[in-house]
Amino acid sequence: MRCVAIVNNARCAIPHLAIVGVGLIGGSLARALRAAGCVEKITGIGRGEANLIEAKELGIIDHWSHQMAAVADADMVVVATPMGSYQTIFSALAQHARHDAIITDVGSTKQHALSMAARYLTPSHRFVAAHPIAGTEHSGAAASRADLFQDRLLIITADDGSEENAQQQVATMWRTVGANVITMAAARHDHLMAAVSHLPHIAAFAIVNAVSNQGEGGDDPLQFAAGGFRDFTRIASSSPTMWRDIALTNRDAVVANIDALIDQLSAIRQAVSSGDSQQLTQLFTHAKSARDAWLQQIVTTEKGASH
Amino acid sequence: MRCVAIVNNARCAIPHLAIVGVGLIGGSLARALRAAGCVEKITGIGRGEANLIEAKELGIIDHWSHQMAAVADADMVVVATPMGSYQTIFSALAQHARHDAIITDVGSTKQHALSMAARYLTPSHRFVAAHPIAGTEHSGAAASRADLFQDRLLIITADDGSEENAQQQVATMWRTVGANVITMAAARHDHLMAAVSHLPHIAAFAIVNAVSNQGEGGDDPLQFAAGGFRDFTRIASSSPTMWRDIALTNRDAVVANIDALIDQLSAIRQAVSSGDSQQLTQLFTHAKSARDAWLQQIVTTEKGASH
Repeated sequence: MRCVAIVNNARCAIPHLAIVGVGLIGGSLARALRAAGCVEKITGIGRGEANLIEAKELGIIDHWSHQMAAVADADMVVVATPMGSYQTIFSALAQHARHDAIITDVGSTKQHALSMAARYLTPSHRFVAAHPIAGTEHSGAAASRADLFQDRLLIITADDGSEENAQQQVATMWRTVGANVITMAAARHDHLMAAVSHLPHIAAFAIVNAVSNQGEGGDDPLQFAAGGFRDFTRIASSSPTMWRDIALTNRDAVVANIDALIDQLSAIRQAVSSGDSQQLTQLFTHAKSARDAWLQQIVTTEKGASH
Repeated sequence: MRCVAIVNNARCAIPHLAIVGVGLIGGSLARALRAAGCVEKITGIGRGEANLIEAKELGIIDHWSHQMAAVADADMVVVATPMGSYQTIFSALAQHARHDAIITDVGSTKQHALSMAARYLTPSHRFVAAHPIAGTEHSGAAASRADLFQDRLLIITADDGSEENAQQQVATMWRTVGANVITMAAARHDHLMAAVSHLPHIAAFAIVNAVSNQGEGGDDPLQFAAGGFRDFTRIASSSPTMWRDIALTNRDAVVANIDALIDQLSAIRQAVSSGDSQQLTQLFTHAKSARDAWLQQIVTTEKGASH
């Protein structure tokens, strides 16, 4: 079987794809590439046996292994694990991956991914750092979906001079599964994501802790929480390990954003505490205006994109 | 026309209903009561003429007025305005409402509503403080929906000894539109809502401000925000005036909850800053466990309720 998909005049043809970490993202990419018909064989490498068996039963992967040696003849290796394991994984890939294989990742902080690649992969390995801005609060292969990347942003942070042809092949792979591919510097990526992604997740964890701790005396506030609370805290059901690694690999930007949030909360606290109605209206109106303007902009963009 | 709806063997029959503030909540209640066939005439009282005209055109109300005198022969008066206007409204109601009319409200903080009623309404007015735990981030009559209160909680805080028969009539009205009615003390209500409702709204406003302020230099992070950010900040599009009034009428509990959130954020900040992986995992896992347990509980309750 020879599988090829054509997107924007570029061919996506991956004879052997290896996915390290067959979770929500890795599993969804495998499903989508198979659906697009551009991959012949998919090998899943991971630790959790039950998850790998389920991934194979669901047809997401063809083979699985706990050993990195299974990537030996893969043309493309996608690392889709929490970033705390990059050191171990990249060392093993240096040993086992084909010298001309393309290695890419999907991690949420890119300076860390690039530094791990620089440290462990030999120059002949063709590493491309990438990040799909997609996900749900669920984890594991069973939660994966072929349409997860449709119309989502995929950021390639190839500012370290990774090979042009490898970048193109990774970009084509992601375009094939429906993503809009853009490139930017890794530092800029990490700075922006700290604000729009890392901070909201950390705030969601913090709010659930603040509220649930009050219930430990007996009268649990959570029993009276409604739909707004459910939506607002959805991302607090995300993987603690994954988010621990994101926070620790983007420390300065994450700390700066937590500080910015504490400043805003302190300003609201001050206005409430002193009964400053005008200041409170100003703070809330500023937020509503910014959010409504943003929403209007993305709705317009989405409408524009559908034409 | 004689309109009656029977719920739990109790009749909902309101010959003349007056809604003060025909917005999302007031408009939805009017729509739902009309759909249930238990109201004959609905008068809307408010300030915004365009909104009142639209409410009449949509069939939500039969008549409208800017003057409180229009409540003169109403059997039931529902106050559904931001709470900053309660003083003005309750003074006017004392002057214009029928002496045996039932007056109730839908405000989000109940100690304030009860204190306004105690101060301005004469004892013969039958006031019942109530709060439907329902809403969306949209405002105005056009956003109202007849199903807004279906399976939602309606809390009556009648700890001030309001008349039993008036309480029953208000409870029957809300049951008729699908709400599950419970009663509790106003202080407990305000304490619980500060945690599960007021804090998330304030945090959403604060996060949008923290993130959007960073864009003022040029590289706006919001352009890279995805679906998670949209869901997480949905409630930051809520009415600034309404939330200002909620915060200012529940000051102590709101301030205590902001402090609890700042404490949680500071603990996470400390763990990130010092690279304390174990502490960070513990904090995130605690939040995920609490949220997942809560979700499991409400899913079970909803399944139970559907039998």
